[in-house]
Amino acid sequence: MKKLLIGFVLLFSQLNLTAQTLKNYIQYVNPLIGTQKMGHTFPGATVPFGAIQLSPDTDEQPYLIGGKYNKDTYKYCAGYQYDDATIVGFSHTHFSGTGHSDLGDFLIMPTVGELQLVPGTKDNPKSGFRSAFSHANEIAEPNYYKVKLDDDNILAEMTTSERVGFHQYTFPKNDNSHIILDLMHGIYNYDDKNVWTFVRVENDHTIVGYRQTNGWARTRTVYFAMEFSKPFTSYGFKDFKPSPYKGFWRKFDQTKNFPEMAGEQIRAFFDFKTAEDEKIKVKFALSPVSTQGAMNNLKTETPDWDFEKVKNAGQNFWNKELGKIAVTADSRDDLVNFYTGMYHAFISPTIYMDAGGDYKGLDQNVHNAKNFTNYTTFSLWDTYRALHPFFNIVQPKRNREMIRSMMAHYDQSVHKMLPVWSHYANENWCMIGYHSVSVITDAVVKGNVEGIDAQKALDASVQTARTKYYDGLEFYMKLGYVPEDKNSSSVSKTLEYAYDDWCIAQMAKKLNRTDVYNEFSKRSENWKNVYDSRIGFMRPKMSDGKFGEKFDALKTEGQGFIEGNSWNYSLYVPHNPEKMIEMMGGKQKFAAHLDELFTIHLPDEFFAETEDITREGIIGNYIHGNQPSHHVAYLYNWTDAPYKTQEKVRMILKNQYHPTPDGLGGNDDCGQMSAWFLFSSLGFYPVAPGSDQYALGSPAIKTAILKLENGKTLAIEAQNQTDKNVYVQKVLVNGKPINRNYITHAEIMDGGKLTFLMSDKPKV
Amino acid sequence: MKKLLIGFVLLFSQLNLTAQTLKNYIQYVNPLIGTQKMGHTFPGATVPFGAIQLSPDTDEQPYLIGGKYNKDTYKYCAGYQYDDATIVGFSHTHFSGTGHSDLGDFLIMPTVGELQLVPGTKDNPKSGFRSAFSHANEIAEPNYYKVKLDDDNILAEMTTSERVGFHQYTFPKNDNSHIILDLMHGIYNYDDKNVWTFVRVENDHTIVGYRQTNGWARTRTVYFAMEFSKPFTSYGFKDFKPSPYKGFWRKFDQTKNFPEMAGEQIRAFFDFKTAEDEKIKVKFALSPVSTQGAMNNLKTETPDWDFEKVKNAGQNFWNKELGKIAVTADSRDDLVNFYTGMYHAFISPTIYMDAGGDYKGLDQNVHNAKNFTNYTTFSLWDTYRALHPFFNIVQPKRNREMIRSMMAHYDQSVHKMLPVWSHYANENWCMIGYHSVSVITDAVVKGNVEGIDAQKALDASVQTARTKYYDGLEFYMKLGYVPEDKNSSSVSKTLEYAYDDWCIAQMAKKLNRTDVYNEFSKRSENWKNVYDSRIGFMRPKMSDGKFGEKFDALKTEGQGFIEGNSWNYSLYVPHNPEKMIEMMGGKQKFAAHLDELFTIHLPDEFFAETEDITREGIIGNYIHGNQPSHHVAYLYNWTDAPYKTQEKVRMILKNQYHPTPDGLGGNDDCGQMSAWFLFSSLGFYPVAPGSDQYALGSPAIKTAILKLENGKTLAIEAQNQTDKNVYVQKVLVNGKPINRNYITHAEIMDGGKLTFLMSDKPKV
Repeated sequence: MKKLLIGFVLLFSQLNLTAQTLKNYIQYVNPLIGTQKMGHTFPGATVPFGAIQLSPDTDEQPYLIGGKYNKDTYKYCAGYQYDDATIVGFSHTHFSGTGHSDLGDFLIMPTVGELQLVPGTKDNPKSGFRSAFSHANEIAEPNYYKVKLDDDNILAEMTTSERVGFHQYTFPKNDNSHIILDLMHGIYNYDDKNVWTFVRVENDHTIVGYRQTNGWARTRTVYFAMEFSKPFTSYGFKDFKPSPYKGFWRKFDQTKNFPEMAGEQIRAFFDFKTAEDEKIKVKFALSPVSTQGAMNNLKTETPDWDFEKVKNAGQNFWNKELGKIAVTADSRDDLVNFYTGMYHAFISPTIYMDAGGDYKGLDQNVHNAKNFTNYTTFSLWDTYRALHPFFNIVQPKRNREMIRSMMAHYDQSVHKMLPVWSHYANENWCMIGYHSVSVITDAVVKGNVEGIDAQKALDASVQTARTKYYDGLEFYMKLGYVPEDKNSSSVSKTLEYAYDDWCIAQMAKKLNRTDVYNEFSKRSENWKNVYDSRIGFMRPKMSDGKFGEKFDALKTEGQGFIEGNSWNYSLYVPHNPEKMIEMMGGKQKFAAHLDELFTIHLPDEFFAETEDITREGIIGNYIHGNQPSHHVAYLYNWTDAPYKTQEKVRMILKNQYHPTPDGLGGNDDCGQMSAWFLFSSLGFYPVAPGSDQYALGSPAIKTAILKLENGKTLAIEAQNQTDKNVYVQKVLVNGKPINRNYITHAEIMDGGKLTFLMSDKPKV
Repeated sequence: MKKLLIGFVLLFSQLNLTAQTLKNYIQYVNPLIGTQKMGHTFPGATVPFGAIQLSPDTDEQPYLIGGKYNKDTYKYCAGYQYDDATIVGFSHTHFSGTGHSDLGDFLIMPTVGELQLVPGTKDNPKSGFRSAFSHANEIAEPNYYKVKLDDDNILAEMTTSERVGFHQYTFPKNDNSHIILDLMHGIYNYDDKNVWTFVRVENDHTIVGYRQTNGWARTRTVYFAMEFSKPFTSYGFKDFKPSPYKGFWRKFDQTKNFPEMAGEQIRAFFDFKTAEDEKIKVKFALSPVSTQGAMNNLKTETPDWDFEKVKNAGQNFWNKELGKIAVTADSRDDLVNFYTGMYHAFISPTIYMDAGGDYKGLDQNVHNAKNFTNYTTFSLWDTYRALHPFFNIVQPKRNREMIRSMMAHYDQSVHKMLPVWSHYANENWCMIGYHSVSVITDAVVKGNVEGIDAQKALDASVQTARTKYYDGLEFYMKLGYVPEDKNSSSVSKTLEYAYDDWCIAQMAKKLNRTDVYNEFSKRSENWKNVYDSRIGFMRPKMSDGKFGEKFDALKTEGQGFIEGNSWNYSLYVPHNPEKMIEMMGGKQKFAAHLDELFTIHLPDEFFAETEDITREGIIGNYIHGNQPSHHVAYLYNWTDAPYKTQEKVRMILKNQYHPTPDGLGGNDDCGQMSAWFLFSSLGFYPVAPGSDQYALGSPAIKTAILKLENGKTLAIEAQNQTDKNVYVQKVLVNGKPINRNYITHAEIMDGGKLTFLMSDKPKV
């Protein structure tokens, strides 16, 4: 088949390094990618790193029903599942690609006819306010989502600014039209997740309030301000869990046209008369600190009622951000994969402060971010691997601000720990390790530290790594490993701590702190303590120093690992592959071992209990759909067969990423899965963040222009690259061949040209 | 019996109007007065109008048990009942004298030996951390409370500054001493009153956190910061209602030495080793806005650990405030009654802002009080009658600031209403009317308005009085009365609205707003619409204009009144007694009617359902123990028998106020019952606040010196006054006899001398 060279008209001038603006990258973004099966992305509207993710929710699955875990909940981490036939409504906050969830704040739903204040069920959608819809009537673009709600023949459109969701509903003629504001709705919305909600109807078109929840974030409050473009004629509330004590509020009928309501489980409705095709618009602003803050955000960001203006501003913003890498590729599909990857990489972390800089800290006090943007949604166990390194290249300023946000988290933490998973003024402690130190080290080692107090960041890293009561650390520090009889998933923890400790040592080295360097260099070797040379796998050790007896290297649960089996996790020594390979029997044996990983069959029963690993994300026994193996395909570079890295990377790119709703092999995990795609497509990957080296792989694009914030431009060209020509014969930096398997950060940031000469034959 | 003239050594120089400072007024204050039976005062420590009321709670009675109202709860409005034999602990917030309740935040209890984390029961106190105590080992003074906790032989002492409770516990020698911090405890603590609590252990001696409740105040949060004088050796938490979802917090043992806890029902403990007689001190600061604010309050007000210094500062503060009226009287008991009355009058409203002026508004946003002190705890249905008029004389600056606080409430109210019952950034809507307008009018008419925007205050009053959905106002405005078939307690509401409307008219007159004057003058006559001339009583009318059929003028419940029967409430036309008396058959008939009120027997069954009326508060059928009749004894002044006012007032003073724990005949109601005592003891009373006149009664003191804020001094002398000489023969203002039954506000505020010539014979 003859391949079309699809790209941009300015291709040649790009290659000549002229930095011209390209107009329409958003045409290659399909927000529906990953919304089917386990991608856990959302299709709705957001701006880059925006605080609002305004998106349809197709169902609401409680996390617990009567104390029992509900398996179906997992599908709804982002609120939307492509296979569903009904939409419950449109809520304002969504995680992108997570494997556990929360949010779904403030669901809005337009309806006509008899008022329904329950969502109804999937099986019987007419029993509630939810509506049927079809993908034929659905458009998802960056910062724009449109769908026809079939039940009531209402066209729903939405766009956003950083802190405001902007809805536009086109109604049929009806004297009995409604817009529902559901404060009960939520994602992972188990029994009593709402702690409290509070609503005030300030006038005939303005509502403010808040929602406080106890979920993945234990103590979380989101404030809102809402404006309608047209006054409502009447309104009301239903309290679905009235307090046993009602006090003197009993003197009012609070259900109808009474401007104040508070309680655990409330839905509100606003009534309108609508003409045929009449548009009612809703601006919905959020704030981390107050309704006052939300109202100010609303007025600052969306002073008027021009939907198109807000949509265009957000789409231009996306074009600007996506345009930081201009690629050409063989097919439109490749471009869609690439720019949708960029899109998903630029959704999280999310802005977490008012337009004026106020944000809520981990101490639940209000702080002001002086001279930086405060971010939340740090899914660090995922994103330290490739997303933050990617930001160090294409979003260095934002990455610095993210580190300042992490330092603010540290300052406000009663544990004096850097974030594990920073979640709306909460630490949700999800997953393991203290990978903030990797993100910080990567920036420090790469010199991206302007505005960061690096010495203080090192102190914070050290203090975090010495928190005895954190997840087996006391034993780790005493014994050199986490003993499985004291703390589960002990091998995963030991391996990740050892890598994190290596990061701290690298930062200390850069900052001339010899004592810290020595302490943590020593700790970084602790991975050796859980390697069982008799079987060639990492393996749980007990506090008496002996390895546990029962052990299955293929099995995922109960073997001393978390979200991975020993086959995959045993390869987790990113900071010292040489030594690991030596201990595993040398280069040749190790390469064969890796081959086996990619080819042996992993039976369903060995991972079925683990929701983050699904058949789609597995190649042989290599689990790409979850993070611990993301560096593994690059490990052939440390053997005599780096060409196998090249073929495996290209195989994974093809196998795990598709331009379709079911196109992601696993959770996108706040952009980590996409960042793997982006790096790998460009031909290199940060195996050990905290090092200034990127392992070379096999570029899948034709050309790429990276427009760097330092004003320089890096052009990447993959000469003769095709689906078959996956092998790299030669790599040139600014025209000079290099004789190594890696490039350095400086080589990227200095700009110039990186050329890969491709072939269908391995270089041996 | 020969009476001793007890008073102050400086009596004669006082009468010569030299303003000398008197040293020890607090010796005449007994905070235990009102703690037995239904006074509902608390015995603990507070400074004048302080934000902290640190006081022992002797039991915790849930308001609802399984949805059913618990009758015993009512006794515990202030947390303490004198007859109880055990103390549960010491909490930081208490209402003084209310007839409904809330608060009791943050109970502290010291114990030794085996840790107990439940309070235990009255019957079996050893089953929990509560302790037996005896009044023999109890001392209650203004700003100082001391008690020996018998169970563990711990001496508890406490004092306060405005925003900090200061505890001092003297322990026995024990290796296993504890201080418990109970966040579950509360007053009127029905099922699930706690919405959320949050605690952080910042270091080995500092704790911060908050408690959020849904009670009488629907959405209320109080923040704290706590410091120990000595580091604890260990600490822990127990969560008595764990959330069904625990998330990744499961990785920690949060019960022991883990510095962060959040949930609905939490108790914390802190462990110490104590030497014999070792004192452990605790500073406990509150804030309406944040833990940061609480910590700042703590550091600002109590920078060191000197218990005596804080105690002395608060007691000096009390002496200064109590010294604003220097009285002499026949007996120490009279002085104790008078100064304990002053003490109770100066507890509420309470300061509601941080040292830096930040407070939470009704809109739940944080505001800053610019150039005024923000107050809460406005029990206005009670306190508009005599307490705020009393403030206009002896606390005019504070009264202006209270009005500014009420205006802030109005500004932040979504209803755009002035407060009904302002309660920690909440409106609890308790009782009826819109008596803020009385408080404001009284200040405006009396010229105490510096810093108040009077025109805006009038607008706020008008808007409040036109709020259709408020408690029958729509009907009242349409029909001229509240119809009983549309809204219960309709007669009480009609009568009180009419008085409030008269207030608005008076304010409008003073401010030259003729339109408002006309509208509300007309409304002020609405009381006539519920007077049934056939029976001579006020009586519920239906929306068809007919009086209801079943009616009993003695009965309290279900007759169209609230907390009063028609006999008492029918006399509620304070703004137009002349017309009322005329309609009721003229002066002679009316005086006989009043005589009957004071003498006929009110059977128990006719008020037993009403918790605010008890036998102790009743004289004949006159109910002094609750507010609606507080002006009634003065109504004889409008007949030909004002001497009966004099004898009745003296009789009530003797009958209803005693210097003993059971000394109050009803709830002190945030100082209203005490303000009646204070005015009446001085010889005059504000029958219609909003008028500048005070009805003359019969002074019960010998002499009084009022040291006014304007620098002037009013001396009051009751010549020849004894328990028998209750009749006023002559009244002199600055030596000139006056020929009327009232004095004016100007006559008081201009200073000088008010002389009563007393006799044992009525002047006829």
